[in-house]
Amino acid sequence: MINLTILGSTGSIGRNTLEVIDQLKEKFKVVGLAAGRNTPLLHEQIKKFNPQIVSVEREKEAEELRSQCRDNSINILSGEEGAEEVARFGKSDIIVSAITGIKGLKPTLAAVRSGKRLALANKESMVVAGPLIQDVAQTSGAEIIPVDSEHSGVFQCLMKERRDCIKKVILTASGGPFFRTPIEEMKDKSLEEALNHPRWKMGEKVTIDSATLMNKGLELIEARWLFNLQPHQLAILIHPQSIVHSLVEWKDCSVLAQLSPTDMKIPILFALTYPQREEVLWPSLDLSEVRALEFYDVDGEKFPLVRLARQALVEGKSAPVVLNAANEVAVEAFLDKKINFLDIYEIVAKVLGDHQKRSVNTLEEILEVDRETRQNGWNFLKQR
Amino acid sequence: MINLTILGSTGSIGRNTLEVIDQLKEKFKVVGLAAGRNTPLLHEQIKKFNPQIVSVEREKEAEELRSQCRDNSINILSGEEGAEEVARFGKSDIIVSAITGIKGLKPTLAAVRSGKRLALANKESMVVAGPLIQDVAQTSGAEIIPVDSEHSGVFQCLMKERRDCIKKVILTASGGPFFRTPIEEMKDKSLEEALNHPRWKMGEKVTIDSATLMNKGLELIEARWLFNLQPHQLAILIHPQSIVHSLVEWKDCSVLAQLSPTDMKIPILFALTYPQREEVLWPSLDLSEVRALEFYDVDGEKFPLVRLARQALVEGKSAPVVLNAANEVAVEAFLDKKINFLDIYEIVAKVLGDHQKRSVNTLEEILEVDRETRQNGWNFLKQR
Repeated sequence: MINLTILGSTGSIGRNTLEVIDQLKEKFKVVGLAAGRNTPLLHEQIKKFNPQIVSVEREKEAEELRSQCRDNSINILSGEEGAEEVARFGKSDIIVSAITGIKGLKPTLAAVRSGKRLALANKESMVVAGPLIQDVAQTSGAEIIPVDSEHSGVFQCLMKERRDCIKKVILTASGGPFFRTPIEEMKDKSLEEALNHPRWKMGEKVTIDSATLMNKGLELIEARWLFNLQPHQLAILIHPQSIVHSLVEWKDCSVLAQLSPTDMKIPILFALTYPQREEVLWPSLDLSEVRALEFYDVDGEKFPLVRLARQALVEGKSAPVVLNAANEVAVEAFLDKKINFLDIYEIVAKVLGDHQKRSVNTLEEILEVDRETRQNGWNFLKQR
Repeated sequence: MINLTILGSTGSIGRNTLEVIDQLKEKFKVVGLAAGRNTPLLHEQIKKFNPQIVSVEREKEAEELRSQCRDNSINILSGEEGAEEVARFGKSDIIVSAITGIKGLKPTLAAVRSGKRLALANKESMVVAGPLIQDVAQTSGAEIIPVDSEHSGVFQCLMKERRDCIKKVILTASGGPFFRTPIEEMKDKSLEEALNHPRWKMGEKVTIDSATLMNKGLELIEARWLFNLQPHQLAILIHPQSIVHSLVEWKDCSVLAQLSPTDMKIPILFALTYPQREEVLWPSLDLSEVRALEFYDVDGEKFPLVRLARQALVEGKSAPVVLNAANEVAVEAFLDKKINFLDIYEIVAKVLGDHQKRSVNTLEEILEVDRETRQNGWNFLKQR
């Protein structure tokens, strides 16, 4: 029996992970769950999966849960420290890190320190703290398996092959809802249109990031640290069908690609079972039904956030932290209907442009830059 | 320095192999060459690559070569035994087996017995003698790396992954020159049209096999023995762009695919350098330029030889030997303009239909069935 902890259990990845586990009850047992404020769903999950340790964002909801769960053997915690304690829980064999945004960083680091397997879906932690996480993993012996479909694809293409034989890693992007929108119409795009992703059902934050293509920019930075690559080895291709998730080009011009139906359960299952593969009854990919897989270059004019992300990727140091924080602030404002779609770029460009790049080697330094950037972002928003 | 022997050096794969070696002179040295009757080209190759042992089909041409090559240190042989002696040459590290047809079987077996690495391009030997070759390789320790682009692709997708996790292996077929030809026009197809392959430049035999799709049928059988698969795990997809060479579907619904520009030098280089990959300056695959990769199911009505090949794949024992021999006879007759395009199917169907399946465990038994089948094929041709 493999013991599993899920950080972010009520989010999209968390729910998909529990669906996977539900089909593999004889192999996996849920021992820990950490969630935000969706206490009703968390309560359902507790009843169904019977974990030993649980955490929610606020103490108020933790108390509610304690009174609802008669079973005193469940340890119910709250706050940042609660999530970290769940991440560190000694009985876990695998920790799925699926809290969205910078909030996932501390629990992710706690999980990596425990030296277990980390199934990583929180891309922001790798974006802002890639070198730190890899250092900690080196020391603790933690094994990091990506859950993002693109990075899972790269991981599967690489497997045991020699990393020094890689020429290029290409991540595909569906292009989001505005792939075929003329550039002059981009400014009129509403929140509802941006949330209407053609291929994937995901959380709101990542759906907006897919509409701006910032998601792919963040994934480039994530891939850099996950696979120890140089910026020039990383590229993006638009692939509207979202069947090919990533490609690895080798030095000898041979290319491996990973494909699958667009279902997050597939990369999740891989991260949980690697190096084994579990037999499933989900429908196979039928390429003759898909008929054509299309590929296009990215239009950097229409999706300028990709250019900013590449700039941060090349600059390194604190730049990715600023990129990520400014984007989180801007997307939050867009989700609150305080700004227009194109303002997301304007805010990230302004904040990143004003920032003086500096070294960030510790968690404290990273969080300091993150706080600063958010403050600058909100100030800029207020002044507009 | 890695010593290389090429069986079939004047054919398409042989010439491509020498082009690869020409670019990697500091790593590879040619020590042995075996060819058929193209003595002028073989003479050029001897002058350029300076091998230590050489063989041609007929003693007459061997004598000519001896008088042309003043260098007495080159051992020039002839006939079947000559080719086998070249295949066994003790100083080789890698033997490229690229003689077309059943003629390649004995030299291939001799190479496998030597316990070296075999870069296998002669698919017929695996089709007619797969279990025997794998048995011999098991004993001698020979390592068999496929050169066919499809099988090289499968090999690259599998690498160190567990074979028991494979759900399906899919080989792609360009569809050949008649992919878009209406079925009622197939009977009028001339030799010249059949030889006009849209994607690959290959030898005449394999080009005709590509037009009938028998090539893909033979490759299914080859894949069965190369990768130890069951018939139901093997499938074909038409892919006119010939960019994706093969796909491996795993039990967890994830799929790996191998892609490359349509250049045989890429799988040849892989077979020579595996598990390393050599850096080359050939142009990279540009998917945004290709734009769309299309996939279609095989039309079994229009390409009935694929159905026959699958029948032989499932039946096993002597059936693949008969399939291959009857096809060689039919294609030879078509190349000599003695029969029409659709007659190829008619002949193979008749000969395979008349055959009483039996066990073939030794080289002698295989060659006996092969001889019998050819005789039946020629008799049938004469009677028509």
